[in-house]
Amino acid sequence: MTIGIVGAGALGLYYGALLQRAGHEVRFLLRRDFDAITRNGLRVTSPNGDFHLARVLGFRETHHMGQVDLVLVGLKTFANHHLPELVAPLLGPETRILTLQNGLGNEELLAANFDAARVLGGIAFLCSNRGEPGVVHHLDQGRIRLGEFTGGLSAYADSLAATFRQAGIPCEAVADLPKARWEKLVWNIPFNGLCALTGLTTDRLLALPATRDQVRAIMEEVITAANAQELSAPITTEFAARMITLTTAMGAYRPSMMIDRAEGRPLELEAIYALPLARAAEHGVAMTRVAMLHALLEAGEA
Amino acid sequence: MTIGIVGAGALGLYYGALLQRAGHEVRFLLRRDFDAITRNGLRVTSPNGDFHLARVLGFRETHHMGQVDLVLVGLKTFANHHLPELVAPLLGPETRILTLQNGLGNEELLAANFDAARVLGGIAFLCSNRGEPGVVHHLDQGRIRLGEFTGGLSAYADSLAATFRQAGIPCEAVADLPKARWEKLVWNIPFNGLCALTGLTTDRLLALPATRDQVRAIMEEVITAANAQELSAPITTEFAARMITLTTAMGAYRPSMMIDRAEGRPLELEAIYALPLARAAEHGVAMTRVAMLHALLEAGEA
Repeated sequence: MTIGIVGAGALGLYYGALLQRAGHEVRFLLRRDFDAITRNGLRVTSPNGDFHLARVLGFRETHHMGQVDLVLVGLKTFANHHLPELVAPLLGPETRILTLQNGLGNEELLAANFDAARVLGGIAFLCSNRGEPGVVHHLDQGRIRLGEFTGGLSAYADSLAATFRQAGIPCEAVADLPKARWEKLVWNIPFNGLCALTGLTTDRLLALPATRDQVRAIMEEVITAANAQELSAPITTEFAARMITLTTAMGAYRPSMMIDRAEGRPLELEAIYALPLARAAEHGVAMTRVAMLHALLEAGEA
Repeated sequence: MTIGIVGAGALGLYYGALLQRAGHEVRFLLRRDFDAITRNGLRVTSPNGDFHLARVLGFRETHHMGQVDLVLVGLKTFANHHLPELVAPLLGPETRILTLQNGLGNEELLAANFDAARVLGGIAFLCSNRGEPGVVHHLDQGRIRLGEFTGGLSAYADSLAATFRQAGIPCEAVADLPKARWEKLVWNIPFNGLCALTGLTTDRLLALPATRDQVRAIMEEVITAANAQELSAPITTEFAARMITLTTAMGAYRPSMMIDRAEGRPLELEAIYALPLARAAEHGVAMTRVAMLHALLEAGEA
């Protein structure tokens, strides 16, 4: 399979490297890492074993990449206004597009610009970050759940999940992509925002009873909002408990939004906060703590 | 009148200076500023006119200060465990104690250690901060509302308010001190915490619609909690609107808690957050946003 990676940050580099190692032809759109990767290749450190790809196909612009079978989108959502122009040159008649971006609104943006039937979404529960140019660190986790934007299970989604699994990526196809997205938000909304706002890692927030209670209360607000959408089945409060247990096991983790703020980048507020708040409000649910967190994060962006 | 100032930060230095200028014998307990003030006196800058006091009575310890007519307490509440031992040496049979400290619990602490009938509380709406040693900057406002801890109007409270007014301090005696305290919390709880947490001055919070809405929502939570206590009259939502108008006029103000955090000092979380939350809970009121703000501020203290 030929795969074009649009948005080769920690997520795009890591999954792209695994897919290339499994024999696929992967073409990376690169900015910061272009020189390092085209010269010296791409190195992955991982608890599953480090590896190095000596020859990597790097491009500075997508209109030099050619058409591919699959576009994998890992772009930060604050750059989504560039997404249609970046993706368009990669599309042949049969090309599918899988966005693994955070939050809500990404599949909708792709579907509005291209054919909705091309679009898949996925949520990646991945702890990774970029090292020096040419290096990506996989820290923990890595599971992907993907599904068709138009809903339901498809043969294509099943086969794509199998392809990912063959490359060493735990992956499953899901019929209800919105449910998977909201489940991811149950994690992203408390941890991304609270860590970015306070500068504290996940373990510090969970170690203090008061902030641990806030994490849980925010998760419950998100679950209430999620269950007011038309999901195939409700998200249980037990899911929140599992997320907290899993995050405790991750140790001193710095969520992507905390890193974005520390490094002076914009935050993914639209996808992770504004749109979920709007969808909640459309269904009559006020997420009080989430709105406060969003307001305080937004104030820091000015 | 002889007046002992315990806690000569920006508030204690400013009011003490005004009282000395009006002819009272003021004795200051000093730490950081002891050398500068005992050598060169105390300088006050103010929109009402700068002035300099050449001879100031500074002490390093209260047991050298002698008995006074009035103890004026301006100590940061995070140092309240020292308060009884600091105040005791200043007390003669008729000495009264006025605490102008932030938040709840200060009069109670003094009453528990001394005679409740000695204790007055006051709220100071004062924008001031310390400059270099020996200098205090008065920026804006300065009104004091004071009252008896044991409640009701008293001839003493009236005469003390008159003494303060004669010294150029706008002051009035109030019968319902708890109401005045909660009114001050309507300002302190949103602005102290939000500015300390975000590092943004009051004008920035009020300029953005989302944070302005949060300020108002937090004020409404505090008003609901206040009105569940046994106050002589309810605090109106119009009071919150007045506080926002007044704060807008203050420009780019840095509340004391924001300065405390920036300078690495502890925050006055017990008096301004924990006790008000406990009093609200005792009356069945949950202050959702206030609890979240408290948790996030507390997490940053570790």
